[in-house]
Amino acid sequence: MKDYYPTRMEKEDILDRVDPVIYGKPVGEYSLKPEEASFYEQNGFIIFPNFFSEEEVNEFNNALFSLKNAPELKEKEEYITEPDSDEVRTIFSQHLFHPIFNKLMKDRRIVDKIEHILGSNAYIHHSRINIKPAYKGKSFPWHSDFETWHAEDGLPRCRVLTAWIMLTDNTHYNGPLYLIPGSHKKFVSCAGKTPKDNYKQSLKKQEYGVPSLKAIKHLSKNTELVAALGKKGTLVFHDGNIMHGSPDNISPYDRTNAFFVYNSVENTPVEPFAAKHKRAPFLSLDDYTPL
Amino acid sequence: MKDYYPTRMEKEDILDRVDPVIYGKPVGEYSLKPEEASFYEQNGFIIFPNFFSEEEVNEFNNALFSLKNAPELKEKEEYITEPDSDEVRTIFSQHLFHPIFNKLMKDRRIVDKIEHILGSNAYIHHSRINIKPAYKGKSFPWHSDFETWHAEDGLPRCRVLTAWIMLTDNTHYNGPLYLIPGSHKKFVSCAGKTPKDNYKQSLKKQEYGVPSLKAIKHLSKNTELVAALGKKGTLVFHDGNIMHGSPDNISPYDRTNAFFVYNSVENTPVEPFAAKHKRAPFLSLDDYTPL
Repeated sequence: MKDYYPTRMEKEDILDRVDPVIYGKPVGEYSLKPEEASFYEQNGFIIFPNFFSEEEVNEFNNALFSLKNAPELKEKEEYITEPDSDEVRTIFSQHLFHPIFNKLMKDRRIVDKIEHILGSNAYIHHSRINIKPAYKGKSFPWHSDFETWHAEDGLPRCRVLTAWIMLTDNTHYNGPLYLIPGSHKKFVSCAGKTPKDNYKQSLKKQEYGVPSLKAIKHLSKNTELVAALGKKGTLVFHDGNIMHGSPDNISPYDRTNAFFVYNSVENTPVEPFAAKHKRAPFLSLDDYTPL
Repeated sequence: MKDYYPTRMEKEDILDRVDPVIYGKPVGEYSLKPEEASFYEQNGFIIFPNFFSEEEVNEFNNALFSLKNAPELKEKEEYITEPDSDEVRTIFSQHLFHPIFNKLMKDRRIVDKIEHILGSNAYIHHSRINIKPAYKGKSFPWHSDFETWHAEDGLPRCRVLTAWIMLTDNTHYNGPLYLIPGSHKKFVSCAGKTPKDNYKQSLKKQEYGVPSLKAIKHLSKNTELVAALGKKGTLVFHDGNIMHGSPDNISPYDRTNAFFVYNSVENTPVEPFAAKHKRAPFLSLDDYTPL
């Protein structure tokens, strides 16, 4: 299969995106409004403030609490800890471990918008809850998710995006996600070969598929950085290829978000484009049944 | 001498400040206005946006450039590098190394305000320029400067403050200083004995004199965190005892500030209150000549 997004080569390069950002049309009850679709197309993200009610957010947080405290889950590979402590940083596959998150993943208020953007049915490539704990949650360097999903999971095209829900308020102080608006229209072909089992390290601290300062300067040259801020219950979509990162959280407030990566059923994985082996199954789920 | 601020004991404790915040009266041409003094007294900091002209800021930055590139200075203890690179993070004693910073230190627009707050003449306890480089500048945990100056340098009372000038814009994205308004009226007596030569490590990453998450939560309970933001040329004062910290800088923009610590000539150092030995001379200068 032709590789439209070559990466992990000797030298970094900045390529043009070859895929559209919005593949489809508004067909569902909850599809994007024209101005929302236009904003998303142009910027590569969109924020829906206070999308879920307080009651719904409480349900999500109760479900997370039970996941965090389920002894049978603690030894699983899906549970990732902070680089220098035993604190849970990430729980993967929450939609498989708890019915509340399974229901959330299929919520038509989300999925109608996803299908509009992807122009097809969707399935979950993976899901995760990121907990950036107060006072010691670590930063995450700039990256495009799609770069990794293409290089290491074998997603052929950029027809994939992340929808995520704030389970705590995301403020300027607790390590929010920074985005470079418009960067989803460029693809940073990253320097350096992928080492074996890279994902075990990269979930704690990413070192491959990381663009240089020069690339970040280039992408942010004509734009202002944006922080994805909002009250808990806020919904955010970001394109699979948008450049993002987040600083550490020295504030006294946790920052917790639930992510769902929706891939088009017409974009299922092939062999990795720039890695010898696929990442662990929970990072690239193989249930392609349309939602 | 009685120790009004015992610290580095077995257990953390939160004590009341025994010293006033403003010791003096407005006597100079550039003293604080009544509303400025009242804001500073209550919050423990004050921001003067665009205090210096663009021309003055250019002078400061040219002086910094020449300091960074002076080969005879590079081997000095006053030059501190990033924990995991050779990049200069801090240059101490800029007022001794460059006439522009010497002149800045004595600028009456600053010193009149300092003398108003300290109620006496002042001298420089130390000075430093902090460069938090784009993309990789590291965070600094919450601390009160005065806790260290009292414990390790032997400053008896909290009659000391820092004035600092932004040499680049300080934005929400490039690792700005976070402050807890009002925290200067409490003294966090920190847990843990000071190890020998602690300063060599603590200038890169502070580990002693660091309050717990519990203490930070307590201090920020009834207030909102504040980020000290501004365009280059902005002047900030913060009380020696205000709790502050800063996240890392993942943005593509450097964040550079020049700090001058002004101590009252009536508050010169005695023996350290909670360390066996004093820190290096450049951290606690012994020229007590009034400015």
